[in-house]
Amino acid sequence: MDKWVRFEHAGKPGFGKLQGDIITVYQGDMFNSPSPTTQTAAPSAVKLLTPTQPTKMIAIWNNFHALAAKLNQAIPKEPLYLIKTSNSFLASGEVIRWPASFDGKVVFEGELGVVIGKTCKAVSEAEAPSCIFGYTCINDVTAADIINRDPAFQQWVRAKSFDTFGVFGPVAATGLDPLKLSVKTVLNGQERQNYPVSDMIFPPAKLVSLISQDMTLYPGDVICCGTSVGVGSMKPGSQIEVTIEGIGTLANRFD
Amino acid sequence: MDKWVRFEHAGKPGFGKLQGDIITVYQGDMFNSPSPTTQTAAPSAVKLLTPTQPTKMIAIWNNFHALAAKLNQAIPKEPLYLIKTSNSFLASGEVIRWPASFDGKVVFEGELGVVIGKTCKAVSEAEAPSCIFGYTCINDVTAADIINRDPAFQQWVRAKSFDTFGVFGPVAATGLDPLKLSVKTVLNGQERQNYPVSDMIFPPAKLVSLISQDMTLYPGDVICCGTSVGVGSMKPGSQIEVTIEGIGTLANRFD
Repeated sequence: MDKWVRFEHAGKPGFGKLQGDIITVYQGDMFNSPSPTTQTAAPSAVKLLTPTQPTKMIAIWNNFHALAAKLNQAIPKEPLYLIKTSNSFLASGEVIRWPASFDGKVVFEGELGVVIGKTCKAVSEAEAPSCIFGYTCINDVTAADIINRDPAFQQWVRAKSFDTFGVFGPVAATGLDPLKLSVKTVLNGQERQNYPVSDMIFPPAKLVSLISQDMTLYPGDVICCGTSVGVGSMKPGSQIEVTIEGIGTLANRFD
Repeated sequence: MDKWVRFEHAGKPGFGKLQGDIITVYQGDMFNSPSPTTQTAAPSAVKLLTPTQPTKMIAIWNNFHALAAKLNQAIPKEPLYLIKTSNSFLASGEVIRWPASFDGKVVFEGELGVVIGKTCKAVSEAEAPSCIFGYTCINDVTAADIINRDPAFQQWVRAKSFDTFGVFGPVAATGLDPLKLSVKTVLNGQERQNYPVSDMIFPPAKLVSLISQDMTLYPGDVICCGTSVGVGSMKPGSQIEVTIEGIGTLANRFD
């Protein structure tokens, strides 16, 4: 069980393993036998970056039985997904911004994120776990009112890809059994979501296998596994935290 | 009016200006005062790459009056868009692949592509032309049957993001007036599309301005402006060409 972080220090990016309150700095390719250096850094002395730089962030819709039941949605026959674009990526500790071009509701969605560890295409469900590097916390921020405001075209990508809406981190954690995890979301100190990953319709290995039939997945790519009940809107000044035991807390202010 | 190309030669990527049948090799940043070298290359001696490496490829739906009229679609109030992911990117001359995971119809869509030249956020329509580097040809390949097969969720991203479905090139051409261009698509030697860009609902400068209100655009990003009448399906062995005068011909086989 390792916790990998990316960070910026003195204007330079770096990465390493977070152990307690110390980052051991590594060099090389995080996904391909990186080597430890003799350097260490205190998390408080560096600026945390997103744990990976995905070539794509795939976000699943309608992937929890509890939320499907609440919204009276049919159980999907296949994973239904959209993309959150790279301009939206935001690290823990950074500020989620209300887009100047939009004055509707902005909601948080706490989710588990799957971090891909190697290039994979058309892998079976049995092979999929070996393609997974680890897991991270996601806040799949959404301008909810946009999605269905055009009657002919669902604007999923746009609603979820405003600058700062693709929040993930603080680490990519390895060695976890995802089906034993819970996702907890706390808004201004109040718990709003707390749901078990085991309630997923398409669990991580199935998602990786099925999506990889369509698209090649690359190291660092992230699959946001969808959210469950308890989603709500944020107000300027809100503090929003997504916590998954074994990963940590993704904490951001909304303004 | 310059035609910029990216290519691979002896395993190394390069870029330069295509003048007649000679590429003058440049160095530096294609979008920021690159300098010419003394080297040249024959296009036939190199492997053509996509003209840019977009951080995102945005594809517009329902952006031509003629196609909207034919399909009886309302004129949209705002640009409606999705993402084609980077695993789909394909250069001129490469083979578009029928996905093993899909046995339905695969259609071509000839389009104009806008190539962004500088980082821009919330630019006005008047400022937008200065953010445009140039234009390219697009084949927005689509697994059409997927889009609406789930009644609750339109699978736009998936239908258009299979590996090899994001075809663009052969060059990024500067100094063109987009509203004077026409997009011509030829399938197996037969003209199937030939429509004027001036029929666009949201022309390039308006698209750049409106999309940049939501998302920061980066150099090399591409906006596929949507297609018009004449879209059709490809069969294994089909040869598909998208030609825009002043840019050139994007030619691919489907198999």
